[in-house]
Amino acid sequence: MKFTADVIISLKKGVIDPEGEATKKALNLLGFRNVSRVESMKIFRIELSAKTKEDAEDMLKEMCDRLLANPVIQDYSIRWVE
Amino acid sequence: MKFTADVIISLKKGVIDPEGEATKKALNLLGFRNVSRVESMKIFRIELSAKTKEDAEDMLKEMCDRLLANPVIQDYSIRWVE
Repeated sequence: MKFTADVIISLKKGVIDPEGEATKKALNLLGFRNVSRVESMKIFRIELSAKTKEDAEDMLKEMCDRLLANPVIQDYSIRWVE
Repeated sequence: MKFTADVIISLKKGVIDPEGEATKKALNLLGFRNVSRVESMKIFRIELSAKTKEDAEDMLKEMCDRLLANPVIQDYSIRWVE
């Protein structure tokens, strides 16, 4: 079966997010003074074939551990796309 | 009121996605031959204050049009975070 999932890579709490900070500052300077926080994240939308959804999820986690996420500074979560 | 939204920036259909392509190739080379497609996207998680959710959504759209997205090659969508 074919599955599609969004793998969402975010920075762990406490890790500095220069892109988010710069974006917040730029928005504030553009006049959006009501923006109090911006956090940047990354999505990989992955289409894969697997026997079951559980198999697919196990493989996605392995992909994150081996390639997509840096476990020192990043967290990941998986969200299924219908 | 405070609102938090994920602004999701993706490439328009037909626009080449070198990061997604490279990630797919790397996953295939690592042994994940069942991965048939990888698409890369970007999230800005934005915390802002506004009178109503509609006001907040209008402002988020303006932020995308003016700063966050490149309308020539990118689409955006907004998803509320509870």
